[in-house]
Amino acid sequence: MKELLDKIVKKNQSLTKYGQVANYIPLLANADPEDLGICIIDNLGKIYSSGIYYKKFTIQSISKVLSLMLAIMDNGEEEVFKKVGMQPTDEPFNSFFKLDLPHIDKPANPMINSGAIVTTSLIKGDGEVKLYRLLEVLKKITNNTTLNYNEEVYLSEKNTGDKNRAIAYLLKNKGLIEDDVEEILDVYFKQCSIEMDCEDIAKIGLFFANQGRIFETKERILDDKIISIIMAIMMTCGMYDFSGEYAAKVGIPSKSGVAGGILASVPNNFGIGVYGPALDKHGNSIGGYGILKDLSEELDLGIFI
Amino acid sequence: MKELLDKIVKKNQSLTKYGQVANYIPLLANADPEDLGICIIDNLGKIYSSGIYYKKFTIQSISKVLSLMLAIMDNGEEEVFKKVGMQPTDEPFNSFFKLDLPHIDKPANPMINSGAIVTTSLIKGDGEVKLYRLLEVLKKITNNTTLNYNEEVYLSEKNTGDKNRAIAYLLKNKGLIEDDVEEILDVYFKQCSIEMDCEDIAKIGLFFANQGRIFETKERILDDKIISIIMAIMMTCGMYDFSGEYAAKVGIPSKSGVAGGILASVPNNFGIGVYGPALDKHGNSIGGYGILKDLSEELDLGIFI
Amino acid sequence: MKELLDKIVKKNQSLTKYGQVANYIPLLANADPEDLGICIIDNLGKIYSSGIYYKKFTIQSISKVLSLMLAIMDNGEEEVFKKVGMQPTDEPFNSFFKLDLPHIDKPANPMINSGAIVTTSLIKGDGEVKLYRLLEVLKKITNNTTLNYNEEVYLSEKNTGDKNRAIAYLLKNKGLIEDDVEEILDVYFKQCSIEMDCEDIAKIGLFFANQGRIFETKERILDDKIISIIMAIMMTCGMYDFSGEYAAKVGIPSKSGVAGGILASVPNNFGIGVYGPALDKHGNSIGGYGILKDLSEELDLGIFI
Amino acid sequence: MKELLDKIVKKNQSLTKYGQVANYIPLLANADPEDLGICIIDNLGKIYSSGIYYKKFTIQSISKVLSLMLAIMDNGEEEVFKKVGMQPTDEPFNSFFKLDLPHIDKPANPMINSGAIVTTSLIKGDGEVKLYRLLEVLKKITNNTTLNYNEEVYLSEKNTGDKNRAIAYLLKNKGLIEDDVEEILDVYFKQCSIEMDCEDIAKIGLFFANQGRIFETKERILDDKIISIIMAIMMTCGMYDFSGEYAAKVGIPSKSGVAGGILASVPNNFGIGVYGPALDKHGNSIGGYGILKDLSEELDLGIFI
Repeated sequence: MKELLDKIVKKNQSLTKYGQVANYIPLLANADPEDLGICIIDNLGKIYSSGIYYKKFTIQSISKVLSLMLAIMDNGEEEVFKKVGMQPTDEPFNSFFKLDLPHIDKPANPMINSGAIVTTSLIKGDGEVKLYRLLEVLKKITNNTTLNYNEEVYLSEKNTGDKNRAIAYLLKNKGLIEDDVEEILDVYFKQCSIEMDCEDIAKIGLFFANQGRIFETKERILDDKIISIIMAIMMTCGMYDFSGEYAAKVGIPSKSGVAGGILASVPNNFGIGVYGPALDKHGNSIGGYGILKDLSEELDLGIFI
Repeated sequence: MKELLDKIVKKNQSLTKYGQVANYIPLLANADPEDLGICIIDNLGKIYSSGIYYKKFTIQSISKVLSLMLAIMDNGEEEVFKKVGMQPTDEPFNSFFKLDLPHIDKPANPMINSGAIVTTSLIKGDGEVKLYRLLEVLKKITNNTTLNYNEEVYLSEKNTGDKNRAIAYLLKNKGLIEDDVEEILDVYFKQCSIEMDCEDIAKIGLFFANQGRIFETKERILDDKIISIIMAIMMTCGMYDFSGEYAAKVGIPSKSGVAGGILASVPNNFGIGVYGPALDKHGNSIGGYGILKDLSEELDLGIFI
Repeated sequence: MKELLDKIVKKNQSLTKYGQVANYIPLLANADPEDLGICIIDNLGKIYSSGIYYKKFTIQSISKVLSLMLAIMDNGEEEVFKKVGMQPTDEPFNSFFKLDLPHIDKPANPMINSGAIVTTSLIKGDGEVKLYRLLEVLKKITNNTTLNYNEEVYLSEKNTGDKNRAIAYLLKNKGLIEDDVEEILDVYFKQCSIEMDCEDIAKIGLFFANQGRIFETKERILDDKIISIIMAIMMTCGMYDFSGEYAAKVGIPSKSGVAGGILASVPNNFGIGVYGPALDKHGNSIGGYGILKDLSEELDLGIFI
Repeated sequence: MKELLDKIVKKNQSLTKYGQVANYIPLLANADPEDLGICIIDNLGKIYSSGIYYKKFTIQSISKVLSLMLAIMDNGEEEVFKKVGMQPTDEPFNSFFKLDLPHIDKPANPMINSGAIVTTSLIKGDGEVKLYRLLEVLKKITNNTTLNYNEEVYLSEKNTGDKNRAIAYLLKNKGLIEDDVEEILDVYFKQCSIEMDCEDIAKIGLFFANQGRIFETKERILDDKIISIIMAIMMTCGMYDFSGEYAAKVGIPSKSGVAGGILASVPNNFGIGVYGPALDKHGNSIGGYGILKDLSEELDLGIFI
């Protein structure tokens, strides 16, 4: 496995020069576009890593999976999906024009910004409590008690977050969120700024692959229905408006973030964390996609064949 | 298995009264809304059926999977997806407003009408040849040499097809189709009017589940890449704008048609054909969805857990 | 003239029962839907009034004409129309979905909310100064030194202004406004809350009819180009998405507000102020429209024939 | 007057090099982009011309005013505006995406293609009769019995008219047109191909300026209401999505066509025909706009000041 990973990382290294790091905030703009790494954990807990897998990065949109999870755990599926859909969209992640059309009553799904702001608002507790609970469940899943958000990235997100403010105020106007907009956005910006490395991400992937079981304790904290929702939503919506092609080419439920991380979860088998900050035009790690495509082919990980 | 199917069909019978048969053409409007049946075939070829599984119905949008398959076989993946995307959408199947926005250059995916008209146009040959080849491959897959389209339904589709004409002329205006619009639509209306019963549909499902192998001959006519594309597109786009929720609740690559049919394909395991003409608001068989949801839970068929 | 006005007001009284007062804030909701009145001033300064012309109301969207005027006076036509268009739209006044489409770079015109927030931001000075200058020029035009905004309405607007916040943050995100969003909105909510009666409104109409001359002093403060822009924009965009039909039926440059006011300006002839808080579905005074339609026919005021 | 026209034509000659002739059909593409001319007729019948005013060109979208007129004469205002709106739009003339949104039930106005196809369909008679009647009324208005359509342009329009076919089939699908689509489009393509010179156009302008009176006979064939509708629609919608700015800068009800013609009508005063095939990005004659802007300023023709 280690050799395979090394080979795949090396092969996809050349892709990174066709991508670009996110540049809307300084700390993302300063990432090294050539970085590329992977960590994969099997369901016995064996960990394999390769490349630049040990650097920390902010999880950004990967956090959308976790706020969705917590929102459902807190409110039940029915309540959550009254306020956000389950349907993938061909619009970019930060598009929200449809919410201003008269026949549209909620965001298409929880993986676009508008939908994710809704799920964050649905986590029980005030802003501080929401974030605390999010971090607690992540610490439990990753067995990493040092997890926290990056203050500098959070402040940058907050400073440049006017598009998300526009989205949130429209959601408020439509009755889809109820609390104070800035308080919700504060949690949202902080959850996006949580730092992890590939191993942390892989452990989250393994957690979903194992039907919501904490690896160390075997405690199961999600039932089949929630797992199925989360995996299906990652598969259909997880890679922004590239999700459809990604499903065809990789076939693994995954979620990407604009800092270059990808969380992937092979049902019953593997958790995978990938890092590569050079992004394609959809906002997904360009080298990370290459790695996962090759890995899926080599190990026959795609769930469609 | 037979008892399970009987139980599930019986249980979901009551759902049919909440749906409505398609009423835009007489032959669909005359379907019995209470009809509900299923046929499932395992990869040893064992066939199990229950309910009203023996009635013939027109496959309608299920044919979109088949024209996509033939288009890729004829042109290769790259050529096809220059003219149609792979991305699921939250728009209804017959929506095409985005194609008139300046930044959109092709239909989102081949499961909405605009995308399917493109794939039909890409099948090699003139109108007659396209249809002949489509029927030939279907006869081979289903081992049913009597397959044909229903002339009355075809003529009705043709008569009421102005929305599809609008779509096709816009596609032509954008250079996405090249042949004569009426000739392409003629094939399109005929492929939608092909008649099958649940067993025929199940055999197509089995064919995809077996990576494109003809059951009787074991001949493989599709490679992994095509299978992966077709299965992924069914999973992400196959149930109209309900595809996301269907993925979460059923978790089986499927494609529905407005006559009430559903094609489902459990990778490496089963082909399934369902019939129930009472439709939900998305255009999917309301009882058929119920059957597949229960079956997926009972037999653990969902590919996400 | 007085008899004519009395007759017309009386005739249109019955229309008011088909409309509804704005109900999104208490003070507007409490208006008497049967109120209906008019004041008309000719260019000799003769004043004719009828009906409930003496009640004060908040000018709401009528203020959009005045912030446009001041924005052009402060920045010149060219600078203003870099950030907002001159083109009427068939979208409602508070629609802003197009601003989130990739090919749209600015609000269609200054009479929809998004465009008006831009013009308010372009008035020179900080928030307090903007409002002060707006009130000063209005006092000069109306010769009414007591003009002020209604604190209660302002606070209500501020409390319920989330849609406008969404719009303003999107404008900020697109670089169309630069100052602090809440500060700009504060001016915007206050300018909408300025109170006037029909005579004040009529004097503003007369000011535009007289090419920007202050009636009392004959001082001209606007040149032909600005007048032409303001009158054309009132004519093409002033009555929300009813502007086209209003142009055909009334033919007088006008601007309405949701408190029930209408400002109308007959070039070289009359200034008109109308009040009637019962609104049609477009947000225009239903009785006020009736009055202006009849008046235009009786006095041949339409500028197209 | 003649000297003034010569001066203005000469001054605006230089603008033509910034425009481009329409190139979607050969005969338009072959026009001389430097051509520029004007004809103006006062209400005594005095005719003044300058520049290249004598060349014939196809009237294209100018015909939309005439099919609107005939549609209202044939059906009454109420029937016509059940199927097409009166509201200007910020969308280009050939946009029709809104018609595919669920809350939109008809084209915004009769000056965009979708609206004009509706008015053409509403002219009484079959295709041949519609065209005959259109030509007859035009002959009467222009006192030019030789008017006819250009066969070559008509055939080119028909050959390249797929976007209009898409629009027409969507209109048919929505029940907004009832006859055979190709028959309606045939009339539409022919009416666009009617050839005139600047004097013919000016006579139509004069006809509207004189409240629908035939100049030679003084016969009045339109009442105030129809004139007001037509003039208002030209003012608010006549210059495509540049109409708002044109209203502010020129202030004369006008209608342009992509062959380079502009019809302008100064109420009670003048009819104007302009020709200049070099177009701006909106599809309006770039030199023609310059001429009309200067003329409006020099002779104070704008109706807003």
